[in-house]
Amino acid sequence: MLRTHNCGELRLNHVSQDVELCGWVQKSRDLGGMTFIDLRDRYGITQLAFNMDSNPELSGVARKLGREFVIKVVGTVKERENKNLQIPTGEIEIIVKTIEVLNESITPPFTIEEQTDGGDDLRMKYRYLDLRRSSVRSNLQLRHKVAQQTRIYLDTKDFIEVETPVLIKSTPEGARDFVVPSRMNPGEFYALPQSPQTFKQLLMVSGFDRYYQIVKCFRDEDLRADRQPEFTQIDCEMSFVEQEDVLNMFEGLVKHLFITVKGIDISSLPRITYDEAMKYYGSDKPDTRFDMKFVEMNEVVKGKNFKVFDEAELVVAICAKGCADYTRKQLDELTDFVKRPQIGATGLVYARINVDGSIKSSVDKFYDETALKQWAEKCNAQPGDLILILAGNKDKTRKALCELRLEMGSRLGLRDKNTFSCLWVVDFPLLEFNEEEGRYFAMHHPFTSPKPEDIHLLNDASSLGKVRANAYDMVINGVEVGGGSVRIYDKKLQSRMFEVLGFSAAEAQKQFGFLLDAFQYGAPPHAGIAFGFDRLCSLFGGADSIRDFIAFPKNNSGRDVMIDAPSTIDEKQLKELNVAVIK
Amino acid sequence: MLRTHNCGELRLNHVSQDVELCGWVQKSRDLGGMTFIDLRDRYGITQLAFNMDSNPELSGVARKLGREFVIKVVGTVKERENKNLQIPTGEIEIIVKTIEVLNESITPPFTIEEQTDGGDDLRMKYRYLDLRRSSVRSNLQLRHKVAQQTRIYLDTKDFIEVETPVLIKSTPEGARDFVVPSRMNPGEFYALPQSPQTFKQLLMVSGFDRYYQIVKCFRDEDLRADRQPEFTQIDCEMSFVEQEDVLNMFEGLVKHLFITVKGIDISSLPRITYDEAMKYYGSDKPDTRFDMKFVEMNEVVKGKNFKVFDEAELVVAICAKGCADYTRKQLDELTDFVKRPQIGATGLVYARINVDGSIKSSVDKFYDETALKQWAEKCNAQPGDLILILAGNKDKTRKALCELRLEMGSRLGLRDKNTFSCLWVVDFPLLEFNEEEGRYFAMHHPFTSPKPEDIHLLNDASSLGKVRANAYDMVINGVEVGGGSVRIYDKKLQSRMFEVLGFSAAEAQKQFGFLLDAFQYGAPPHAGIAFGFDRLCSLFGGADSIRDFIAFPKNNSGRDVMIDAPSTIDEKQLKELNVAVIK
Repeated sequence: MLRTHNCGELRLNHVSQDVELCGWVQKSRDLGGMTFIDLRDRYGITQLAFNMDSNPELSGVARKLGREFVIKVVGTVKERENKNLQIPTGEIEIIVKTIEVLNESITPPFTIEEQTDGGDDLRMKYRYLDLRRSSVRSNLQLRHKVAQQTRIYLDTKDFIEVETPVLIKSTPEGARDFVVPSRMNPGEFYALPQSPQTFKQLLMVSGFDRYYQIVKCFRDEDLRADRQPEFTQIDCEMSFVEQEDVLNMFEGLVKHLFITVKGIDISSLPRITYDEAMKYYGSDKPDTRFDMKFVEMNEVVKGKNFKVFDEAELVVAICAKGCADYTRKQLDELTDFVKRPQIGATGLVYARINVDGSIKSSVDKFYDETALKQWAEKCNAQPGDLILILAGNKDKTRKALCELRLEMGSRLGLRDKNTFSCLWVVDFPLLEFNEEEGRYFAMHHPFTSPKPEDIHLLNDASSLGKVRANAYDMVINGVEVGGGSVRIYDKKLQSRMFEVLGFSAAEAQKQFGFLLDAFQYGAPPHAGIAFGFDRLCSLFGGADSIRDFIAFPKNNSGRDVMIDAPSTIDEKQLKELNVAVIK
Repeated sequence: MLRTHNCGELRLNHVSQDVELCGWVQKSRDLGGMTFIDLRDRYGITQLAFNMDSNPELSGVARKLGREFVIKVVGTVKERENKNLQIPTGEIEIIVKTIEVLNESITPPFTIEEQTDGGDDLRMKYRYLDLRRSSVRSNLQLRHKVAQQTRIYLDTKDFIEVETPVLIKSTPEGARDFVVPSRMNPGEFYALPQSPQTFKQLLMVSGFDRYYQIVKCFRDEDLRADRQPEFTQIDCEMSFVEQEDVLNMFEGLVKHLFITVKGIDISSLPRITYDEAMKYYGSDKPDTRFDMKFVEMNEVVKGKNFKVFDEAELVVAICAKGCADYTRKQLDELTDFVKRPQIGATGLVYARINVDGSIKSSVDKFYDETALKQWAEKCNAQPGDLILILAGNKDKTRKALCELRLEMGSRLGLRDKNTFSCLWVVDFPLLEFNEEEGRYFAMHHPFTSPKPEDIHLLNDASSLGKVRANAYDMVINGVEVGGGSVRIYDKKLQSRMFEVLGFSAAEAQKQFGFLLDAFQYGAPPHAGIAFGFDRLCSLFGGADSIRDFIAFPKNNSGRDVMIDAPSTIDEKQLKELNVAVIK
């Protein structure tokens, strides 16, 4: 080893020891007779000291070291006169005897500091320098820890990690596949997996009983800020279980992760149905860090000649605690917020419950004090609260009020990144209708089992939308971190499901024949779940974007700007693969 | 849960307990009044018992269950009358009260037994059934354990697992890349990584200090029996280390794996140079489970008018202990063996050291008893031994004798799969000349550091072949399980290396510019290693092929015959990707 210790481990009990350290020059300070250098490595920072009087030559060398030079020093640990109790090594410094410059550095394009002067693009291009910043590095250390603890938990529960293939077969259902031309099979292509779904089900057919994998998956989608073409899943499957067993097992995983990674003891996860989630939060991934549940107002607002409410399918309110003193300007802001095209409400009705108990609404013309008292009662609003109401088509209005609720939660500081609220959303619809394509799609995926009591509804086209699935999502702080389902394990039911999804028997056999075949040879009841690992890590790290929890992420055009990929390839290479680029 | 216990855990201390078990019908036996069923799951086999007298109806149901039916039974644990001490559950059986058929099975295409009647092709097509056989399943359980223990070891040594990207950039050096057309960047392609080499070096530049990853890699090569287009590596890199540190660290890993996975305490790994390995074993991956080292005979055989030896660059022998009584037929077999085209020797010379001390050779015409005594002495041959000699061009003759040595090792039973002999081969040549392309290629890869004392040899084209690298391979039982090197961390030396490899400055910048750039910002000294994970597992499992240690392997045409991939894809999909198939 080129060093005896790292830059994070020396303490007062090392005083007088001779040590060798290696690292990067974080910064240096010349204080007249003394020169100090902060030497940095992954483990911390140690102060190096040089005395101009006792060793002018070495001090001269030290003064010439630039930022980010890589050096090795030999020296003696000494107690500091001016201790820095902010850092673990702050009570000591190294009186340096020799310096060896292992590598020089030209001036970095941005400063390697927490408050860097580098913009997003520059930091992505020089990602290897951005990764030197301690916040980015600690994100990846957190990621490592989450993976480690996930494995520890699942290993103790008898799960086996099995690697499923990356070069698989393209399937038209779901998102777009990335494909890979096969040189040895001209004209044919592999696809990269969007998930190991069918393979994990086959492993259950094989009797593997409990499977997991922390695995890369791929989706060729138009990217948003929080999507990446390649992403990582914690992928799990169990046999001989019912939904309740899966919920308990993975509630256990998340509790284990919170206690081991964050030191937080979370309570049992509440379970609400999809219908309840939509009714009370307007979302299947409600942020339950704060209450502010929806209150449906139809029965107390209709019939007072206020056309907007009378004609609305749904009139629905939230009660913002302590916001009765919102100014006109603040209320206008909220109205503008809900009227933005991406939210699309036509207007916002409010009622202030003043501290003196009087109520003032934006629709006083139609509603007298008695009527408004009814509103307040319905919303359980107290003096000082503000009721905000949207009206219109049920689905759209819920969606808009969901946004308003989140906005109010943010304004009221109720969405602290260090507070965690987890829950299960269960009983999802099995199918959702796609207006554009005029057919039903699987809401989760085609292998999800309907609830046994709803299977009969599959026989009637008009009731397809009512079929509930044994499907569940884990939601933390308004983010869907995981989802899964009990699977179909009966070949006949699976065939019926493909039929409902518009696959002909021949198409189903072509795409999923191996799975349908497998189900003939004794498939066990099984169920599973997959967690978005990048998302889970960013949540644990209190960040909004997953990008800073991925070592080498791609930008919104799917480019790695550091290595400049994708790129053109040789004609010769293309020819070998039997493909050509079409302009 | 559908069960209270699994099929591997019930013992005498469970007697009288009511239990629920789930599993597959392995087989059933009707013995007049009793019917017995072996119920199988991942954890073991439990015997179910049905009494025709006390419960004729249930016995009737049991008799109708076919092989591989999935059932759930409720019953009571009872001590067996006829115990089977071969299996852990063999002292008990279940007196069944109820049976529920969870799923039926049609007759499998081959029997799910250790001695199956299914051929290779059939088992690959129905891999999900093949995986039910306990040997295949236990291979994958072994794989899981090796991965688990690898992580445990590296985690305790402060290594961080960092996921590097799968969608990267194509590089012409090395094997063929698999490529992925980018829809969002028309005409451009990602490549799948042959290894995370450059990324792990960038992580060292970033100061990650110790990195590892158990990671899928991809190579579009024509496949041999023991190659797969996708394979798994244990990929590692360390900073501020010298070669010796890497050897010690990963010798530690392998020792840890042997003790925790196999229960075998292996001694320290001997280190031999590449030159020694070639001289004594004719191979850079010698099988050292047995001795039988090469003995160079030039000085004792030349000048006796035996033209074959006189004209040979190298005359080299092995001494096969106790083989002096080999028959003429056996010796002819060995001669035929070395004359096969893939070995290519022109003949085989032998000398028997008879038990009475007399020596009889196949070239007695040229060598008298005194000369042959010299041979025996040189080879340290004792009465009863057989000396086998090949002659010719040095490299070819060594290669041929290597094959003969392995053949003799096998014939003498010296290559037991449960014996493990590990070593390091060090000081590899930096470059190897490719006759076809008329230029030097990196023997390891272009980032490997030459030995500092050999760097000056890089300046002279005639001495390029003599440059030794700080590169090392770990060899177990004649298999290269891992290899690595100290890396170049100096931009100038790296540029010189690219020049030697025939890259123009512009080409080097285009392909590896990001790495060369990174080296300008303070790259630390670093070194690493990668282990072939599939190979390591097959070695631990005592198998020759890696295929049985991969859940869903591909065949020699790169096909997954189970899912039938690769396959054709839609024109629409191709068009979106801006590519066309060329017939």
